[in-house]
Amino acid sequence: MKKELAGYPVVVEIPVAWGEMDAFGHLNHAVYFRYMETARILYFERLGIPEFLGRDPLGPILGAISCRYRAPLTYPDRVSVGVKVTRVEEDRFVMAYVIFSHGLGKLAAEGEGTMVCFDYRQNRKAHLPAKLKTRIADLEAKGF
Amino acid sequence: MKKELAGYPVVVEIPVAWGEMDAFGHLNHAVYFRYMETARILYFERLGIPEFLGRDPLGPILGAISCRYRAPLTYPDRVSVGVKVTRVEEDRFVMAYVIFSHGLGKLAAEGEGTMVCFDYRQNRKAHLPAKLKTRIADLEAKGF
Amino acid sequence: MKKELAGYPVVVEIPVAWGEMDAFGHLNHAVYFRYMETARILYFERLGIPEFLGRDPLGPILGAISCRYRAPLTYPDRVSVGVKVTRVEEDRFVMAYVIFSHGLGKLAAEGEGTMVCFDYRQNRKAHLPAKLKTRIADLEAKGF
Amino acid sequence: MKKELAGYPVVVEIPVAWGEMDAFGHLNHAVYFRYMETARILYFERLGIPEFLGRDPLGPILGAISCRYRAPLTYPDRVSVGVKVTRVEEDRFVMAYVIFSHGLGKLAAEGEGTMVCFDYRQNRKAHLPAKLKTRIADLEAKGF
Repeated sequence: MKKELAGYPVVVEIPVAWGEMDAFGHLNHAVYFRYMETARILYFERLGIPEFLGRDPLGPILGAISCRYRAPLTYPDRVSVGVKVTRVEEDRFVMAYVIFSHGLGKLAAEGEGTMVCFDYRQNRKAHLPAKLKTRIADLEAKGF
Repeated sequence: MKKELAGYPVVVEIPVAWGEMDAFGHLNHAVYFRYMETARILYFERLGIPEFLGRDPLGPILGAISCRYRAPLTYPDRVSVGVKVTRVEEDRFVMAYVIFSHGLGKLAAEGEGTMVCFDYRQNRKAHLPAKLKTRIADLEAKGF
Repeated sequence: MKKELAGYPVVVEIPVAWGEMDAFGHLNHAVYFRYMETARILYFERLGIPEFLGRDPLGPILGAISCRYRAPLTYPDRVSVGVKVTRVEEDRFVMAYVIFSHGLGKLAAEGEGTMVCFDYRQNRKAHLPAKLKTRIADLEAKGF
Repeated sequence: MKKELAGYPVVVEIPVAWGEMDAFGHLNHAVYFRYMETARILYFERLGIPEFLGRDPLGPILGAISCRYRAPLTYPDRVSVGVKVTRVEEDRFVMAYVIFSHGLGKLAAEGEGTMVCFDYRQNRKAHLPAKLKTRIADLEAKGF
């Protein structure tokens, strides 16, 4: 595994599609967020969301996300997107992302997003369920 | 109204987004289908789908669609997408689309798609409800 | 190799992204055209376009394309998209596509598109260069 | 003009497309960045980029961008995206974005991005041209 991806318990490989480039001839900026989403969804699957939350009306929603672009991506290429949880608070947790370009042999971008625990029944923020915190800790532990 | 859009009971105006262009510097081919979808959804709203189908487990699904490209679109531009039903059969109907470029002053593309009536409960094709045929006839009549 | 992909000299594997699904919970219809584009671009690379056309002001442009939907795709899944040339005429050639779902174990869609040879200098259709026809024949022969 | 858009010299109106919603039934998170891009491109046009930079090998590139989600967007809706420059430094400037939902009557999201001045000939960061700073100041002044 690439050292840039070390410490990321969930990594997904994505082929860059030609059609994801824009008129500048680079991967369009918005697509990096699609790539991070793909990794995030996989992370949640590994956590067992939604199955394990069962009929709980709670779920994490994306409160904010950012991306720092370090090198332009172009087709053809293949990226590995790593994601990990870097901080857990009462009603939210922070996820860090890296997008590693196999073509360039280095990071193309880094991102960070905040997931907020939301109670769909009461339509407001809620505390993270203890079992979700445990799952995150377990998943992160496996990755290190 | 542009003569190219005459006879189309539903027309929707869409601004071309810069980011919808691809590395060739033209609107990406797949985006034309997004534009046609936008017009199709509006047509269905005008028909009153899904409200009027009520708890009917029937709905039209897209069986096939095609696009003929006549002129490349580029940002900045604004298109008007027209849609009409050109044929109604027992279990399906055909929709024709035109994409008119205001920047070019002519059609950029034409499309055609087939909607098949599907029974989600029985998981198979079904006859179009009589009321749906009536709604289509009414909507088309208004447009001519 | 899956029998559904037999006879297709160029096949590309694409992971379905969660974010490519729309509000119906299925892969959005326009995305199938993105998948076909990915296969088409790879086919052109295999032909050696644009390198071998050199400074020739000729190139194939997409004149029309269609898709027939056979089964809805959902995340998670992985598709293999096959593409082949089925007919070569004086100024155009026809490409056939299949989208095979590994999750469903069957074809999710079939497509067909027409590439027209265009002379960018004279801004009009042109005859296909003889060397391009030869390359296509060679590539198709390898695939059968 | 909505008070949420006051102080933004460039505002662009964008219709939400049905197909931009994802399987959660909300506008996909990545699409907000497409919307901000549309506003950014318009801002650059108002600045006169690229025309006025002429044969200058300099141009602003996106170094980083973030979005804070405040309310989920759904089709049908129409948003107004405002953009302004909030800070100019030697080799970069910061742009702030707001996405106002006309359907909700409030802000759906806020964003911030950093544009870095890049010298394509020397392949490195460069000082912002004085004339670009002047143009930005002029455009911002008109908007306040």
